[in-house]
Formats: sequence, structure tokens, C-alpha cells
Amino acid sequence: MSIRKETPAGRLKKAPESFVSPELVHDISRQGLDDARRGFLKASFAAAAAAVASGASARAIASPADGDPMITEPRPWSTSLGQPVASRPYGLPSKFEANLKRRQSPGLTQTNQSSVSFAPLQGFFGIITPSGLHFERHHQGWVDIDPEQHRFMINGMVRQPKVYTMDDLMRFPSVSRMHFIECGANTGMEWGNVAVPTVQYTHGMLSCSEFTGVLLKDLLDDCGADTKNGRFILAEGADGSSMTRTISMEAALDDVLVVYGMNGEMLRPENGYPLRLVVPGVQGVSSVKWLRRIEVGDQPWNAKDEAVHYMDMMPDGLMRQYTSIQECKSVITTPSGGQALLAKGFYNVSGLAWSGRGKVKQVDVSFDGGKNWRTARLEGPVLDKCLTRFNIDWVWDGSPVIMQSRAIDSTDFVQPRYRQLREVRGSRSVYHNNAIQSWKVAESGEVSNVHVE
Amino acid sequence: MSIRKETPAGRLKKAPESFVSPELVHDISRQGLDDARRGFLKASFAAAAAAVASGASARAIASPADGDPMITEPRPWSTSLGQPVASRPYGLPSKFEANLKRRQSPGLTQTNQSSVSFAPLQGFFGIITPSGLHFERHHQGWVDIDPEQHRFMINGMVRQPKVYTMDDLMRFPSVSRMHFIECGANTGMEWGNVAVPTVQYTHGMLSCSEFTGVLLKDLLDDCGADTKNGRFILAEGADGSSMTRTISMEAALDDVLVVYGMNGEMLRPENGYPLRLVVPGVQGVSSVKWLRRIEVGDQPWNAKDEAVHYMDMMPDGLMRQYTSIQECKSVITTPSGGQALLAKGFYNVSGLAWSGRGKVKQVDVSFDGGKNWRTARLEGPVLDKCLTRFNIDWVWDGSPVIMQSRAIDSTDFVQPRYRQLREVRGSRSVYHNNAIQSWKVAESGEVSNVHVE
Repeated sequence: MSIRKETPAGRLKKAPESFVSPELVHDISRQGLDDARRGFLKASFAAAAAAVASGASARAIASPADGDPMITEPRPWSTSLGQPVASRPYGLPSKFEANLKRRQSPGLTQTNQSSVSFAPLQGFFGIITPSGLHFERHHQGWVDIDPEQHRFMINGMVRQPKVYTMDDLMRFPSVSRMHFIECGANTGMEWGNVAVPTVQYTHGMLSCSEFTGVLLKDLLDDCGADTKNGRFILAEGADGSSMTRTISMEAALDDVLVVYGMNGEMLRPENGYPLRLVVPGVQGVSSVKWLRRIEVGDQPWNAKDEAVHYMDMMPDGLMRQYTSIQECKSVITTPSGGQALLAKGFYNVSGLAWSGRGKVKQVDVSFDGGKNWRTARLEGPVLDKCLTRFNIDWVWDGSPVIMQSRAIDSTDFVQPRYRQLREVRGSRSVYHNNAIQSWKVAESGEVSNVHVE
Repeated sequence: MSIRKETPAGRLKKAPESFVSPELVHDISRQGLDDARRGFLKASFAAAAAAVASGASARAIASPADGDPMITEPRPWSTSLGQPVASRPYGLPSKFEANLKRRQSPGLTQTNQSSVSFAPLQGFFGIITPSGLHFERHHQGWVDIDPEQHRFMINGMVRQPKVYTMDDLMRFPSVSRMHFIECGANTGMEWGNVAVPTVQYTHGMLSCSEFTGVLLKDLLDDCGADTKNGRFILAEGADGSSMTRTISMEAALDDVLVVYGMNGEMLRPENGYPLRLVVPGVQGVSSVKWLRRIEVGDQPWNAKDEAVHYMDMMPDGLMRQYTSIQECKSVITTPSGGQALLAKGFYNVSGLAWSGRGKVKQVDVSFDGGKNWRTARLEGPVLDKCLTRFNIDWVWDGSPVIMQSRAIDSTDFVQPRYRQLREVRGSRSVYHNNAIQSWKVAESGEVSNVHVE
């Protein structure tokens, strides 16, 4: 079975080809899809009982001494003293997981400081993104700012401009919220039918964390911001690019956070340490990292990254500016492009869904290119402007299949097909592509990215 | 201000003593506690406006050129190219956070392989514990097992014993759940009035993660477990200690998980990679790491760690065996022992609450040793058998104070005072101490651990 060169090590590739016994596949496929889960468990038992002699991996045993050296012979880790506690005061993943890492797409930008690294969604579980694997999008590289030297200023249309230290901010009333951050350009290559091979590259500018910080509205209140005439704020970063973004006062007074904590600890340098903005549900560029200033004003700023980048070319040739909300979207992450199914039979198909407008209400999955849909199980908690993990049972009968997922959010917005999205948006955009993703499973079991309009 | 030697760097210690202007303190303290939050925001503005000349840290400004070199002089990180993306394919905390680490209490056990490292709760935000700082409790050291060589067996009172590979398990229906894990001995030293100095050592055998895996009941079903006569299961680890624990079939069929994922990625070696049990709400020792076997039986096993350790000496001198549920408990983490308040004025007081029996319903906080209580804000999501973060506004007037938190869970169980706990349990226990923790704030601002019955 050929595996693409750029494929991260998928977990589905490790097992031997004899992973599932023919009996199991046969029994399961007879159950039909609706009864797949119950059928799986029953058939699995029946088949495994018959599989003692076949050497299938999930095999029944008469006794522990029944063959497999992994259980009949003493294992070194079971017969020795391991590593002491605190031998790693800050722990790291297993050495066997070294292949799961964020990856840059070579040559994407002129310098690697102004580029992207993609998160390996194909290896993720649940909704929390491990902080070490959060995607990166820098405009002039990441910096590790001494928090004692960092200052945050609020000025503009305020009664009293102020400068805060990190210690000041940590004494303000604190809130913790789980939210996704998705780059507006995520899935951008797919607009032009460039079938990027893996979900890491199609959807990997997406991460989700528990953020802790101060509500921006409390700080605006502290400075006496003019929230009537001051209809906008400008957020400015302290990195070399001085990233600046206009945000509506409406959002600023709603759920925008000035954040210092991420997944239980201080922000990572690559994610804006020691202070960043988080604008929930809005494209990532607005969640300005290394946040040093908020200015209150009465009109948008037309900053470089609002007037040159991060705009959508519409079918009439005009540019749509100041779009921001990341609309309802989903993607199957396991199995996904670059992975391979090892045999026919039962699989747990899993993915992520999210909406910048609220909660995910439902996720449907199709295994026939969008003709028929079944509703997936959503794992809790299901939260506003946060990733939601979905799982669905599936029995692969060995024939070619097109897998799709379709999310519906709490506003009843339904994630569109490419055909529907293109009717409104044309095909010249880079940003804000939330169309349904299609993965093809070939007869060989290999999974690849295909375009289905 | 003297700081204890074993004190981790608390964030509250970094600011200068002139952190809050006298005007601010005065204005805030006049507002009274009930109106503290609103009062804070208003007074903060008024005071800061008056503080321009005083050099207070959170200071009002006339223009960015108004004094502070941190904003008037170009900062190196704002005028240079930073680090490229993916320069750390797996990211790490800032170099300025190096002091926040898990710590061992020296000499606690004969070998460091059979010991504990405590999580630095004083530096945590929200509810997710960073995986690199999850507490450790090993009985013969941690191991990094090759997942391709790991096997998991189910035997005993089952129709068909089976052996699973990791790949087998990953094809089963997958679930993700957020749960705490607390060692049964957490806060054990406090039984004997040993006032351990910091919350890292009083409560640091506590962590909380998003776990992903397979429901044990699905695997028991797959093997045809006799769930009527087989009233118990034994879970066995693959490490050198062969940790074995008896768990009731009732729990096994409820929410016990066979887990491979933690906070979005594979388990860390220190936490049982590649497979562990998670028994929600139950003392950590039952969540057997490096899980290699489950046996179904009709009576408890009386394993070493059930017959010698992990028992409670009751007032009548008899040992209470097979206790397991971690009852409702809470602790203030910021500020906490070893930290110091820098000045009078407003603080965000924050902590954690949890219950092995369900959800946290309410957390009350007292600043006068338990005479008066105010209800704290709970951060969402509030989940079953999961940590819940609470925050409460507080204005310190500079006088000595005893701070306490008291959690109430969804069964209406109220976290007891020491006096109440000792009435039932006596004073000779090590395990299952869920009494109310008291922190004393001295006039100097220094926070220390004190016993209040």
C-alpha cells in the first residue's frame, strides 16, 4: 500500500493487514448501517470467537500463554524500575509520538517568519488542542516577551487613557472560556481546487483552547471608553509587524477577552505570550497576539491587513472588506487524506465541527458523496464558538466511498456544498471557505482529498 | 518581605510595592464588599486619574510619551524579526515561566520511582491541567511503552477472553470526557496538622484533563462479560509495580473509560501511555496507568494496594477498606500559601472545586474564617466529576484575614470543616481529606497555611 510522502504517521496505518478477520467483516456488513454499532459489538464477539486459529489481531484466547509473545514473554517495562517522578518537571509526549507535529508548507511565503504552521488535526482527540501543537500564523515571527517589561495601553476616545502592567491585569475579575481560533485563510487552497493532501494542510489553521483573561469591556469601562460614538476599537500587537485590526465596539462589549492564560498555564510565546486578544468566532487575525494597545475610535482604521489582505474577492470583482465571522464548518479528521484503512469492517469515524455564531447543533455524515446522511454523536461539552467533537460508527464494505460531514449551528445555518458557496462567493476568494470537505476512500483503503461540488 | 524557600514564583509577587495607589485603595475600601466589583471599576478609574503624578503602576497617561520607558522607548521585540513558524514543531512554555513546574517533596519515599510530584495549582488558570504539569504518582517509576508492542487483555468471568492491540481499541466507538483525577492521599499531611506551606503541596495531587477512549462497558460486552455474577473487575498495570485495583462492576458499566487520549493528544508516558483506565470521581490509584489487563470476578481481590495502603483508620481503630469516591472539595489557589499580597485593594480570588459524585453546584468564600460567606462565580463549563473554576471579587483592607472556600455539589453535600470531618473520621487517616482549607493573610500581605477546625 503506497503512502504519500507528506503523510504524517496516521494511527490507522499501524495494524497488520489481517487486522480484522473475514468473519468479522462479513458479520458486520450484514447488520446494515443503522444497526452498525450494536451489530459491531455482537459480530465482533462472534467473529473473534471463531478467529482463534486465524491469527487476527483482536483475537480470542484460551489463556495468556496462547501465542502472542507480547503477552507470553516478560516485557522489559514490567520487570524493571522505571523513571523517577519529576524526572521531567515539565513533561513531553512519548518518543513514539515524535511524528505528530506542526508543519510548515514549504515556500508558502518569502520568509518563514511571515508564514503558517499547520496543526496535525489527524492525530487530535476531543476538542482541546495541545498547546505545543497549536497552529501558528505570524506576520514577522514569534517573540518571547518578558512579562515584567510588557505594557498594555488603552487610548483614543476614552475619558482617561491608561497603561497596564501584567500584574494590573491579573488583579481584574478573571474569566475562563473555551473557544476555537481559525485563520480566515484556513482551507483557502481548496477554493482553487488545489487538493491539498492531508487534513493538516486543508484545515490545520484551526485550534481550540481554554482561555483565561479579562473581559475587554471591563477594561474599556475602567478607562471610561465612549462606547456610543466610539463604534470601533483598534487592537495592536507588539511584535515586529505591529499587527493592527479593527473590531466593532459591539463585539468588544460582548465576549472579547484580553487573555493571559491558555489551557491552564500562561500563553505560549508562539500564541502571544504574555498577552493576546481573543475575539471569539472571528477569524484568527483579529485575535491580536502580543497585544500592546487598544484604541477606541469612531471609524474603521483600514489597516494594511484590512485593506490589502484578509478581503474576499466577490463574483462581481469587488472586494468584500471587514468580513470576520467564521461560519459554520466541519471536517472529518479520522480517517482523512493520507491515511489508509487497513481492512474492511468497523471504524469509528471522527471529526470536528464549529461555528463563529454559536453552538454546533448537529453534524451529519455521508458515506456516498452527499446522497444519504446519518447524524453523528456529539461529545460534550458543546459550547459557544468552540470546537465540537463528533463520532459516528461506520462499516466499510471495501468499495470506493466519498465521505463528507455537514454541520448545522444553533442559528440553523447549514454548512454549504462547494456549489452553493460558489453561487454566492464565486471562485476567486482565499478566505472564509467553509464548504463541505470530501475524502475519497479507494478500494485500496487509501484516503485522499477530492473535490465534490 | 520574606518569602519561604520552597515557594514557587507566585505571580502576585512580581509587581512593585507601589502597585496600587493609596487613593485607589482608599476609594475601593469605601465601597464595601457587596459592591466590590462595580466599586472597583469606578474607583479604579477615579483613582488612576488622580495617580498620574504618583507613579503607580496602573497609571493614567496623557500621551504615550508620558514617562514609562517600556512604552516610550522602542522595544527590541517590536523592531526586529522574530522566530520563524515551526521553529519549535512542538511548542513549550516561555522561558520566563520556567519556575512553574511539578515538584517532588524530598524524602517522601524510599525511592523516587515510588513517589509523588505535585502540580503547581497556584499558577493554573481555568480547569484544564497542562499535560506537562499533571501530577505524578508512580509505584515503580514511569515507562514509555511502544504502542505497537502493548497489549490489553480481558479475562476472567467472560464468555471469551480476548487480547487487544492499540489499533483494535482505536477502532471502537470513541468518547471524550473531561474529568479530574485526584490521588486519595491528596491533602493527607493536613490530617496531622502539618501545615504544608503551599497549595502545590497541600492539594497538588490533583489534575483535570479531557480524556478520549473507549467505554469499558463496550469492551466487556465484546468479551461477553458475566455482569451479573461478575460483580467486580480487577485492573492491572504493565509497569514494574503491576498495580492492581478492584473496581465495582456497577462503576465499570457506568462511566469507566479505557483511555488513550489526553488533552487532545496521546497520553503522556508519566500518565500511562499508551493506555490507562480512568475511573471518574474515584481516587486516582484506581485509574490504573499502562493498563494491560482487566479481569472479571465475583469478589474483591484484596490486592496489596487495597489491603495495606489506601485504607482509612477510623476512630474505633478499625480500617475502612475499599473507599474510593473523592467527596466534594475545594481550595483557593490564588492567592495561596507562599504568595504575598503586594498592597491593599482589589483582588480576583480564584480557586478550584470538584466532586466525585457529580457537578459542583455552588462555591462560597469566606474572608473571616468561616463566619460570613459570599457566593463565588463559577466559570463554565460545569461538568460531572470535573474541576470547576471559581472566581470572586475581594478588596483587602490590610488587616489579617483567614480565607476559606466551601463547595456544595449536585447531591447537596457540603464540604465539611475539619471539626465536622474529625467527628466521623477521627485524626488517624491519611486518605480522603476533603476538609475546608484555610489560608491566612498577614498584615504584611504574606499568605500562609493555617489550621482552622
